[in-house]
Amino acid sequence: MTKNVLIIGAGGVAKVTAHKVAQWANEFGALHIASRTKSKADDIIASLRDKGHKMDFASHQIDAMDSVAVADLIRKIDAGICINVGSAFINMTVLQGCIDTDCAYIDTAIHEDPSKICETPPWYGNYEWKRREAVEKAGMTAILGAGFDPGVVNAYARLAEDEYFDKIDSIDIVDINAGSHVRYFATNFDPEINFREFTGTVYAWQGGEWTENKMFEVGREWDLPVVGKQTAYLSGHDEVHSLSARYKDSDVRFWMGFGAHYINVFTVLQSLGLLSEQPVKTAEGQEVVPLKVVKAVLPDPASLAPDYTGKTCIGDLVKGSRNGEPGEVFIYNVADHKDAFEEVGSQGISYTAGVPPVAAAILIARGTWDVKRMVNVEDLPARPFLELLGEMGLPTRVIDASGDHAI
Amino acid sequence: MTKNVLIIGAGGVAKVTAHKVAQWANEFGALHIASRTKSKADDIIASLRDKGHKMDFASHQIDAMDSVAVADLIRKIDAGICINVGSAFINMTVLQGCIDTDCAYIDTAIHEDPSKICETPPWYGNYEWKRREAVEKAGMTAILGAGFDPGVVNAYARLAEDEYFDKIDSIDIVDINAGSHVRYFATNFDPEINFREFTGTVYAWQGGEWTENKMFEVGREWDLPVVGKQTAYLSGHDEVHSLSARYKDSDVRFWMGFGAHYINVFTVLQSLGLLSEQPVKTAEGQEVVPLKVVKAVLPDPASLAPDYTGKTCIGDLVKGSRNGEPGEVFIYNVADHKDAFEEVGSQGISYTAGVPPVAAAILIARGTWDVKRMVNVEDLPARPFLELLGEMGLPTRVIDASGDHAI
Repeated sequence: MTKNVLIIGAGGVAKVTAHKVAQWANEFGALHIASRTKSKADDIIASLRDKGHKMDFASHQIDAMDSVAVADLIRKIDAGICINVGSAFINMTVLQGCIDTDCAYIDTAIHEDPSKICETPPWYGNYEWKRREAVEKAGMTAILGAGFDPGVVNAYARLAEDEYFDKIDSIDIVDINAGSHVRYFATNFDPEINFREFTGTVYAWQGGEWTENKMFEVGREWDLPVVGKQTAYLSGHDEVHSLSARYKDSDVRFWMGFGAHYINVFTVLQSLGLLSEQPVKTAEGQEVVPLKVVKAVLPDPASLAPDYTGKTCIGDLVKGSRNGEPGEVFIYNVADHKDAFEEVGSQGISYTAGVPPVAAAILIARGTWDVKRMVNVEDLPARPFLELLGEMGLPTRVIDASGDHAI
Repeated sequence: MTKNVLIIGAGGVAKVTAHKVAQWANEFGALHIASRTKSKADDIIASLRDKGHKMDFASHQIDAMDSVAVADLIRKIDAGICINVGSAFINMTVLQGCIDTDCAYIDTAIHEDPSKICETPPWYGNYEWKRREAVEKAGMTAILGAGFDPGVVNAYARLAEDEYFDKIDSIDIVDINAGSHVRYFATNFDPEINFREFTGTVYAWQGGEWTENKMFEVGREWDLPVVGKQTAYLSGHDEVHSLSARYKDSDVRFWMGFGAHYINVFTVLQSLGLLSEQPVKTAEGQEVVPLKVVKAVLPDPASLAPDYTGKTCIGDLVKGSRNGEPGEVFIYNVADHKDAFEEVGSQGISYTAGVPPVAAAILIARGTWDVKRMVNVEDLPARPFLELLGEMGLPTRVIDASGDHAI
């Protein structure tokens, strides 16, 4: 008996996720999309029909901050798998709705509290991991952070563990978007989430402890396949926490690529206080959160897709040793913005984030990853996931002692 | 019988104006300060008492957008001279209040409509000059634009006309602030007014017609007394309009000095749409004017004064000929931020703007400038004004064929 899938969220990533579910319709039952704004879910379903998909689709309005509403919807539509690609503020209520209904749960980013700039370590420990026992008791599967980064990059680390090293010294995750969206300035995700990643302290796990830096304080030039030489900066990111819990004796760092123009605009906005999530009062007495105004004037990330060209390269440089013999491997994917738009009507950043949770859902449906507990991606065998992703449009390549090749 | 003075406004410029009136108390009767926020007027009066001034002071709450309220207050306090140094949006209602009560009127900048980014030529013709007949009929004196620029720089042009040339070819007004306020970024005036000056088209009067440029499109390096080599950019400014009406056959340009950092911050904010006076809607549905939020996060211009150091140089380079003999003269003032703060508790930009309307008020009180009609500063004899300003802390110097000397 196939499982019905419920996607929560209707932004750029949700659109990719929906298209991939529809492309792999024989793995699932019906597809339901629920959003705060029902018309956005309707738009996605219309784009699925445009592509000729014939699966059973339905849209729903939901307040995903209300776990009872989530549970009610899951029961009503008999969902077996819930893919949460809504805002970062709804994880805990959606997870609770899944626990209450024994529905498998997948998300792509940590939970955040809307009143905080940026969560501090131990990120997953702040919210999600506190529910591990509840998930196990309910006997359901919850896969956390199953997008690209976190998600696929966690599987890359696990692949290095499984197939390359018995001791891992360092995991450097590098995320380069060498694409161009033509606009003066835009963020690739919801600006509110995007900027929050960079306005706080940058945490890395080095020498067995958390180290702290400021954003753009530590830069390094990387020379990567396809995208070439690119400068990336030490950044905080969800997966640094979960990977450092599994790989306690390794250094775990996340590097995000930024051009000089992005850094300049970001620096101006941040220095002026315009990225603050704390309200200010105008001379007329109106209370306003500056970051929400910045979000309102920036292009909608989904609107960038038609003009987006160029490629992304995201990968893990893992250094370690096997039987005392040191080595390194770079495990990576290259995605193309234009290809993504032609296939599913979204840009490459949304594509890389939206495909992996569907791979995870298929592996749950097939039983391979239906582990009946709460896990992060690195806790699961990597090869089935990466091989399936290859079939789904996100092939993994490896640069190791034998050269640059497919896994 | 001395005249009571009413100052409308209680910002940084109003503070300087109040201190100068108090320093020259023997020219006037009582001093009244009226503001939308009465406590700001009270603060200025407290600062006057701190300096030991013993004039009769009183503060008032006023809605200066209501001409009846203005007239009522003028009658109640028997004001003979009203100095309007409030926001640029109140000129016409304050002027009307003065017309209705036969009270002399002085302002320092053109009227603006809050719903427009930037007024287009013929600036003064849009509002103020339409009231010329009404002013003449009422038999009262209205002196427009009697700050520094417009104001003193208009008198500089008139001085060149009176004492140097029978034919004027060009008037280039150059405004350089070589001071430092330590902050990452700040505007020296109300940011809402400050940015509006630069977000629209830059108008200059050249070759007998209005020419249009974009802001920061035309830059020129100037080598000025005290402040040295500085880059200034062709900018729109009130006095270009009134001077071009009087000096139709001359080129009239205004140049404002900007550092690379200011231009970068301005360019980022403008390119993102954050300097717009048109409301945007946040994801939560709140309507917000981005410019008002930028204003809310920037430092209050008045707060810059204690740390402000360095000097300003503002002057007119006038080229022309007398009896067919070509020549040029640079007429200028240098002011010091720290001296201004020590004298009246305000920074130099507020000082240069706030002192001249008091000189104008004194000349009205003495009868010299009590012309019973509406005029701009260049319509009045310049020497009495400039000599009085020298006594009041804003000395005029001249660089001409005989060197650099006091007027």
